[in-house]
Amino acid sequence: MSAVSTPPHPTAPAPARRDAEATKAAILRAARHLLARHAHADITLKAVAERAGVSAPLVVKYFGNKDSLFARVMSFETDADLLLDAPLDDLGRHMVRHVLVSQAAGSDPLLRIVFAPLHREEGDTLRANFRTQVTDRLTARLTGPDAGLRAEFAVGALLGLGVMYGIARGTEIRTADLDDLVDRYAPAVQSHLTPS
Amino acid sequence: MSAVSTPPHPTAPAPARRDAEATKAAILRAARHLLARHAHADITLKAVAERAGVSAPLVVKYFGNKDSLFARVMSFETDADLLLDAPLDDLGRHMVRHVLVSQAAGSDPLLRIVFAPLHREEGDTLRANFRTQVTDRLTARLTGPDAGLRAEFAVGALLGLGVMYGIARGTEIRTADLDDLVDRYAPAVQSHLTPS
Repeated sequence: MSAVSTPPHPTAPAPARRDAEATKAAILRAARHLLARHAHADITLKAVAERAGVSAPLVVKYFGNKDSLFARVMSFETDADLLLDAPLDDLGRHMVRHVLVSQAAGSDPLLRIVFAPLHREEGDTLRANFRTQVTDRLTARLTGPDAGLRAEFAVGALLGLGVMYGIARGTEIRTADLDDLVDRYAPAVQSHLTPS
Repeated sequence: MSAVSTPPHPTAPAPARRDAEATKAAILRAARHLLARHAHADITLKAVAERAGVSAPLVVKYFGNKDSLFARVMSFETDADLLLDAPLDDLGRHMVRHVLVSQAAGSDPLLRIVFAPLHREEGDTLRANFRTQVTDRLTARLTGPDAGLRAEFAVGALLGLGVMYGIARGTEIRTADLDDLVDRYAPAVQSHLTPS
């Protein structure tokens, strides 16, 4: 055993930084929650701040004005990075697991697309982002014919899983073992990605 | 060839009856549209009537008060009758086709469940109806282990198809041939109904 003391883990954030990240995450969660229940036009920065348990000026400090906050919430870029982070042969399993783990943690990488009808013109922004940042990006990973349609099917299957878990709140899916759910649902998703 | 004149087709409604049915359908469509964009508490009978192009008293005549109109809109009973109307071996194909045909006609038998978060307590009614009238009813049709979970998976896959078509508005799925869509998506649904 070495007696040399190790330096702090280089990726461990300092407490202040970690607090800031947790606060930003709480603000984004609050904004997403409100966007699932109210039209974009009816949501105020103050309401977001109240729900996140912070002051409105802090929301402005971190995210700028309402437009820039909601531009962030309406982007799927970061979510797609995590969702698509697996080799193609294992992508079905990875995506199903990622959706279920996110759902159990109270978020979902994709599900906010279902509230597009609430937001009128901003709904079109949400749809356009969803297409370019999620579906088109998955399409680019696929080989073989009809890659675009297959990507839409695979993403649709994931969206349905999220709806059943997080919105319809299916009693079976919410009590089953995670590995079991992945084993059972992933083959249907993978069949669109790499048809045999 | 017989010269005997045939009576009117016994199931062909008289014009007045047909108009009444068309008006009722327009009112239900208007109520569904508003329930996808506004909280239940914020919707008035007058708004439903305006959107349907009829008078508020006519809505009352056909559906009673707001509560009874929305009880009807929040029921999946009639939709499930049509959705589940096929033998089990062909049920995956039938349900996928039924969802796609309904979507193309501007409705969807199941999709209004995704707006449950908008409606607070009424959202719970919507979820309870969805469970007993759709998922439990499908479960009762299935044999073998884990029928409840398999029914939730199958319904989830259908919901995802509806989201991708009607809300995310996937460009590929909206331009593909119906039979082709059924051929490609139904096997994944059927795999939950009758696993091999």
